[in-house]
Amino acid sequence: MAARPRLGHIQFINCLPLYYGMVKSGDLLLDVELVKANPADLASMILQGDLEVAPIPAIEFARHAHEYTLLPDIAISSDGEVQSILLLSKVPAEELTGRTVALTDTSRTSQVLTRILLEKRWGVSPTYVEMPPDLPAMLRDADAALLIGDEALRAYWEPPKGAYVYDLGAEWTEWTGLPMVYAVWAVRREYADAQPDAVSAVADALNGSLDYCRDHLDDISQYAARWEPFAAEHYRSYFDALQFRYEPRYREGLTRYLAEAVAIGQLDAVPDIRIFGEGE
Amino acid sequence: MAARPRLGHIQFINCLPLYYGMVKSGDLLLDVELVKANPADLASMILQGDLEVAPIPAIEFARHAHEYTLLPDIAISSDGEVQSILLLSKVPAEELTGRTVALTDTSRTSQVLTRILLEKRWGVSPTYVEMPPDLPAMLRDADAALLIGDEALRAYWEPPKGAYVYDLGAEWTEWTGLPMVYAVWAVRREYADAQPDAVSAVADALNGSLDYCRDHLDDISQYAARWEPFAAEHYRSYFDALQFRYEPRYREGLTRYLAEAVAIGQLDAVPDIRIFGEGE
Repeated sequence: MAARPRLGHIQFINCLPLYYGMVKSGDLLLDVELVKANPADLASMILQGDLEVAPIPAIEFARHAHEYTLLPDIAISSDGEVQSILLLSKVPAEELTGRTVALTDTSRTSQVLTRILLEKRWGVSPTYVEMPPDLPAMLRDADAALLIGDEALRAYWEPPKGAYVYDLGAEWTEWTGLPMVYAVWAVRREYADAQPDAVSAVADALNGSLDYCRDHLDDISQYAARWEPFAAEHYRSYFDALQFRYEPRYREGLTRYLAEAVAIGQLDAVPDIRIFGEGE
Repeated sequence: MAARPRLGHIQFINCLPLYYGMVKSGDLLLDVELVKANPADLASMILQGDLEVAPIPAIEFARHAHEYTLLPDIAISSDGEVQSILLLSKVPAEELTGRTVALTDTSRTSQVLTRILLEKRWGVSPTYVEMPPDLPAMLRDADAALLIGDEALRAYWEPPKGAYVYDLGAEWTEWTGLPMVYAVWAVRREYADAQPDAVSAVADALNGSLDYCRDHLDDISQYAARWEPFAAEHYRSYFDALQFRYEPRYREGLTRYLAEAVAIGQLDAVPDIRIFGEGE
């Protein structure tokens, strides 16, 4: 008798389409123990061995990559604008040297992405300060603010007057020509080695959920609008921008992101990335 | 925009049929925030206002009944044997006066049920000691042991040699002629008053899940056996014993249980029980 694998789930709007697919298609929810939490907590839990599979921030994965193998067909990613990761600035980004940038304390991967774009794309050297995601407070104390999630979507649809708004997914792709990968589905290596069939079953079920959600984005947008703060057409636009892809170009985007993180001193080295079922 | 109601779920085998019904039928899992925990923790969470609806132990409900209204068509109950709540004794129950009974520290309702049966049905006055659910340790330190859940099911199917085994559901019904109610689905009164349509929707969806699970007990027993320690036919037998009924005879059983709890000093008074949608 084996225990059900414990599968993490990100309890944010970005993973709502996937959850919708899980509920509506197949039996995934019967064959795993679904554990909902925010990405940082999921990263801690799987690192401690309290989960077998979980979506975790790209940068947190990279810091402990030797512990994990990645599911081959799923990530949280964008190829162009992402809408939910924004830098709002009182001055053009190119003029932020010597000024202060407030980074929301809710996302490590986006913090590093912001630093990469500021330092490498825009060539500026600001001072960084970490703050809770409260835009008025951030722009009172700083010249620019990184927002993610609902706060970012609100600013995307109704940009604050006079602010320069940068969609960091769009900026990344414009700069690199590559997609950006925000989170990956990590599997503990020892579990993948011991229970490859269970991991395959989870991977297949997640792919089934993704197929379902890609075919029902209108329904999912209507559903999101019932319970969440924005209109259905906004969610439809967001769900088109936010991808769950991890194909070769996306993997190249992840490697480039990690290399840039190393270049600015936010990561020690680009790790070897092992993919479940590939190259072994 | 309203928030999804937060619905507690008991993460034990006794509620697995209900969860199976939730996954397989309807959209309940999209329209609530499902929070899985053990019954005692669910009782604490709903009392603190961190859940709107939750299954909680009958005795915990009774201690704070003025905070709640109950869903009308669902409870965890039995009408005769229950299989998963057992008293194992080295001597006949009638001979336990002056001896020690070890009560598992994992169930308040069953502890009180055990005391009622010992003191009122069997007329004995033992000494009670609370212990973790480890049968050998319990029977080393005491003359009888209350077990619930998997530990009880194991003893039900393979009774330890020389032990007198009492199924407390069966004993209750034999003594009172009534069913026993172990847990009820409580709704915070303020929420039921403010959001009756949301409560109705949850109640209907739970009833739909129950209908599905009652029609698929063979499938659910097979499913349980895939992940849990016992064979499918044992689960089928257990799921037939364990009911989700809260019809008038069951409600009468609950009131009788609470009255007996008062009689032995384990509850201050039998509360008025308010049922959602009835008598208002």
